[in-house]
Amino acid sequence: IDLMDLASDILQPKGDDVARISWYLRDIITRYQETFSVIEKCPKPVIAAVHGGCIGGGVDLITACDIRYCAQDAFFQVKEVDVGLAADVGTLQRLPKVIGNHSLVNELAFTARKMMADEALGSGLVSRVFPDKEVMLDAALALAAEISSKSPVAVQSTKVNLLYSRDHSVAESLNYVASWNMSMLQTQDITKSVQAMTENKELKSVTFSKL
Amino acid sequence: IDLMDLASDILQPKGDDVARISWYLRDIITRYQETFSVIEKCPKPVIAAVHGGCIGGGVDLITACDIRYCAQDAFFQVKEVDVGLAADVGTLQRLPKVIGNHSLVNELAFTARKMMADEALGSGLVSRVFPDKEVMLDAALALAAEISSKSPVAVQSTKVNLLYSRDHSVAESLNYVASWNMSMLQTQDITKSVQAMTENKELKSVTFSKL
Amino acid sequence: IDLMDLASDILQPKGDDVARISWYLRDIITRYQETFSVIEKCPKPVIAAVHGGCIGGGVDLITACDIRYCAQDAFFQVKEVDVGLAADVGTLQRLPKVIGNHSLVNELAFTARKMMADEALGSGLVSRVFPDKEVMLDAALALAAEISSKSPVAVQSTKVNLLYSRDHSVAESLNYVASWNMSMLQTQDITKSVQAMTENKELKSVTFSKL
Amino acid sequence: IDLMDLASDILQPKGDDVARISWYLRDIITRYQETFSVIEKCPKPVIAAVHGGCIGGGVDLITACDIRYCAQDAFFQVKEVDVGLAADVGTLQRLPKVIGNHSLVNELAFTARKMMADEALGSGLVSRVFPDKEVMLDAALALAAEISSKSPVAVQSTKVNLLYSRDHSVAESLNYVASWNMSMLQTQDITKSVQAMTENKELKSVTFSKL
Amino acid sequence: IDLMDLASDILQPKGDDVARISWYLRDIITRYQETFSVIEKCPKPVIAAVHGGCIGGGVDLITACDIRYCAQDAFFQVKEVDVGLAADVGTLQRLPKVIGNHSLVNELAFTARKMMADEALGSGLVSRVFPDKEVMLDAALALAAEISSKSPVAVQSTKVNLLYSRDHSVAESLNYVASWNMSMLQTQDITKSVQAMTENKELKSVTFSKL
Amino acid sequence: IDLMDLASDILQPKGDDVARISWYLRDIITRYQETFSVIEKCPKPVIAAVHGGCIGGGVDLITACDIRYCAQDAFFQVKEVDVGLAADVGTLQRLPKVIGNHSLVNELAFTARKMMADEALGSGLVSRVFPDKEVMLDAALALAAEISSKSPVAVQSTKVNLLYSRDHSVAESLNYVASWNMSMLQTQDITKSVQAMTENKELKSVTFSKL
Repeated sequence: IDLMDLASDILQPKGDDVARISWYLRDIITRYQETFSVIEKCPKPVIAAVHGGCIGGGVDLITACDIRYCAQDAFFQVKEVDVGLAADVGTLQRLPKVIGNHSLVNELAFTARKMMADEALGSGLVSRVFPDKEVMLDAALALAAEISSKSPVAVQSTKVNLLYSRDHSVAESLNYVASWNMSMLQTQDITKSVQAMTENKELKSVTFSKL
Repeated sequence: IDLMDLASDILQPKGDDVARISWYLRDIITRYQETFSVIEKCPKPVIAAVHGGCIGGGVDLITACDIRYCAQDAFFQVKEVDVGLAADVGTLQRLPKVIGNHSLVNELAFTARKMMADEALGSGLVSRVFPDKEVMLDAALALAAEISSKSPVAVQSTKVNLLYSRDHSVAESLNYVASWNMSMLQTQDITKSVQAMTENKELKSVTFSKL
Repeated sequence: IDLMDLASDILQPKGDDVARISWYLRDIITRYQETFSVIEKCPKPVIAAVHGGCIGGGVDLITACDIRYCAQDAFFQVKEVDVGLAADVGTLQRLPKVIGNHSLVNELAFTARKMMADEALGSGLVSRVFPDKEVMLDAALALAAEISSKSPVAVQSTKVNLLYSRDHSVAESLNYVASWNMSMLQTQDITKSVQAMTENKELKSVTFSKL
Repeated sequence: IDLMDLASDILQPKGDDVARISWYLRDIITRYQETFSVIEKCPKPVIAAVHGGCIGGGVDLITACDIRYCAQDAFFQVKEVDVGLAADVGTLQRLPKVIGNHSLVNELAFTARKMMADEALGSGLVSRVFPDKEVMLDAALALAAEISSKSPVAVQSTKVNLLYSRDHSVAESLNYVASWNMSMLQTQDITKSVQAMTENKELKSVTFSKL
Repeated sequence: IDLMDLASDILQPKGDDVARISWYLRDIITRYQETFSVIEKCPKPVIAAVHGGCIGGGVDLITACDIRYCAQDAFFQVKEVDVGLAADVGTLQRLPKVIGNHSLVNELAFTARKMMADEALGSGLVSRVFPDKEVMLDAALALAAEISSKSPVAVQSTKVNLLYSRDHSVAESLNYVASWNMSMLQTQDITKSVQAMTENKELKSVTFSKL
Repeated sequence: IDLMDLASDILQPKGDDVARISWYLRDIITRYQETFSVIEKCPKPVIAAVHGGCIGGGVDLITACDIRYCAQDAFFQVKEVDVGLAADVGTLQRLPKVIGNHSLVNELAFTARKMMADEALGSGLVSRVFPDKEVMLDAALALAAEISSKSPVAVQSTKVNLLYSRDHSVAESLNYVASWNMSMLQTQDITKSVQAMTENKELKSVTFSKL
């Protein structure tokens, strides 16, 4: 649907000349990009749980998520090349940072071939594969529940800094987290968490106030 | 051969003092680097098909390629440390971006040990291993044929943007592809590709004009 | 111990108001960061050999090392989220550059779950797993001995440039190594190493002067 | 008013502990920053015409503009240091890129002293000084009229690329403008502009369609 | 001439559709850019001596030079906006790094107005103004003679590092020059230069071998 | 003295071959660089007050300071080129960021000519010139006294962020200051400063606790 919409915008471009059509198309692309980038801007971790086909815009979407799970029947396809364009709303930008095997990234992007669940696991696109959709969803929800039981200051600060590290040198990232944590370390959540740990209690029994 | 040439340039350096010899050597290194970087500058995907030993300059070469296949008898060796130098024409610069396992990259670069085909596959240096050279070449040529059946606007734009993404942050890369695609989306290849897809035809039956 | 110390510094912060406490905490964080970054600044390769639990500060430590080996009983835990904070002395900054599977990195950082030796190998956090501590230590020492038998100019230049490449684009890194090697190629170690290779002798029999 | 508002937000911070108050304040700062950054995101040139005092938030505002004019009675004051804070919504970030005299920038920021119109002209903060407000406004409106008589493709592409150049290396900026202009050069505005020039006509007599 | 050529390339573009014309135009722009960037790649300082009109491509040219002198009759014009395009072969990329007054840079680029010699001196576009062309040429040649009397290792290393500093942070630039100078300091030119200074002799009497 | 020392280190280099001497020299350069960079790392503003000759290492020193004043008899000389080397401990790295006139920076660095006080003021190397040393010192001390009367949280946060902005894009710098100020805004200094302002009292009468 995503790609079809985009195609229709392109097939009926608006503007008096090539420059003006280009300007218009750039606006559209930027707006589409933003719809995926908001996932990164959300400071809470986002888990993608994939079953069946994850194609084109689907790959744009899940590469903007923090953790990827899939069911055994899932497959992944960077489809854009087959509709005549370079993927421009996230896949070519994020996939090479999401998995470490660039020969594979390139192959997928140039051929639009399907990658099945096992290869997705082996290459690190997903961190776990489950026998079917139900088991996967249970696991994803359990994972979400576990993460949400922890200090929101710790969890959200972790997301902000992991994303910062992806795009910066180690020295830059260390400098940034020092300026970030000089305030975040002054949270009651540390006292509460350390106390729970010392008393061998589960974090689920601790109440952290909302962030 | 590569390394032997380089060694001979070094054993008989030209210049009146250390600074002038250094200046001369820098020129040589830069020219050698350029011979590998042209592979990246070529906007068409380049596939490396490796059998037997891929040593020293061979690793410089294949890490500048986009997709790497190998035969079961292939092995890979970052040999430079054994001839007394740090690899300076691509391996130390590209290998850590090509595979995601830095402990392995470091081990290979510090020890010059052979990495066999299976470890190359497991670590992602190659994306497929084949029983022998012939099967591999058939597969590599089939891959090349498949890629070349697709829209050249899509394929070459994909290569340009994948390489850009490797060296930039996600935000920078999204900005770049938006400015790139505002013109590239105005190609007839999209109409042709979408129509072929709609009519369930193979892309091989579509004629894209040369880029 | 590390984390407990840090926690105690935080529980009894020094300073008259939030800004002053923050300033003080930033100093502490920066000093802690530096204790790990010196490993990178040491131009000789550093090998981490892990058995048993490698938790919190342990992960900060080993991600600053160049090569990671572990015993079968090893496990790894990014524990900080469970004590209410974002890891700020190296793990969030280096782990995403050390292994290529970001879904896994995120999962480990958000959940603080244990990663066992096999998953550490599969994901590339370690490059080899050994049956027990003794075998691992023998292998690590043998690796260290082998690396130290090679030209120190070659080995240490390799480390400097691998770390530079991690944090820079390919073009920047090629430029840097050309300026680096224009002097380093003027070492007798190359003549010695090439001669040993030509005569089929082991590098261990060659004497390289200290760097 | 700006600073008073901010101060009141700070004097009555919201949140259960320091970390949560910090999170809340970061949101406020980011929103304030955005109110100035939209000026840069507007692709049309923005002209600041200053008379009387331009203080604190005023300096944040004008440094986000493209061209600065002022009347003889204007003065400029980076006031934040006097209310106990580092300027965080643009001045410290943009002023050093707007004028080339860093000793002066630092002096202004550390002392909060007034800079009068002549020094503003000499240092390049403004590009012209006018005897009074009316003359200045006439000149600013004339400037706006002149710019708006030109091709919007040319003018707005110029702004986008000037801002890109401010924040990137020359090589990066050349690469970017090449990808930008490969579409923008396909505008009818060039034909129209060249023709007007050839025929010695004013651009005001040419009609460019809206962008 | 430059701009007219470019215009003619644009008025008769080659390619079957917008994407292909764009690809072709990008090639042209990149080639034009390269004709100016070679001035920077030349390690010897390049002096621009301007009299009369320096318009469009002329500004692209002189901003790629290292030192700019002009005669009293010189004027400078960023003319591109008047022919309907954003300057894409150097002016928008280098001018903001060449002079520190961004309000003025923007005004010049948006209006295409002439800047006379005195304003060019005041803003720092040129470092000296001379009464006429002859006096200027004498001064420029004297400057060239003086620079060429000095150690070529010192002069050319200075150019390389000044350009590096323009495009990098101070920390990056310090790191780079340290790796650069570790060989360049091993030049006989230092001994020769220091000796000449000690003996109070002119550098012109010292013979430095060619670089 | 500085340069003479350096020269003597170079004239009697330590190490068995060129590579080892280079390694040794790099260590020396880095240590020298650090002696100037500590001025930047000091979070308190540093004022340079120059009379008489400021030559070679003197320019390295003052460009690392925040504010530069000079007496009428001061002159400035980037002397390194005359002793056969490229300035490598700060001048070539910081001077182009300290003043906005790059033609002048290049001329000074290539010719080693003296720049007198008036040209230093006109180009922005110094922000004020005084008739003699005594008047200048009085003014520098008055400036220091005035700055030290203000909130140390405001002053030192300003220095940290001005230096950050020098080396980063505007977007990066805005992000950084938001993370910095989310804690620093929680200082009592704001309440104290605002109150003093409201009551029309001098900041000198306010007591800020030490940072």
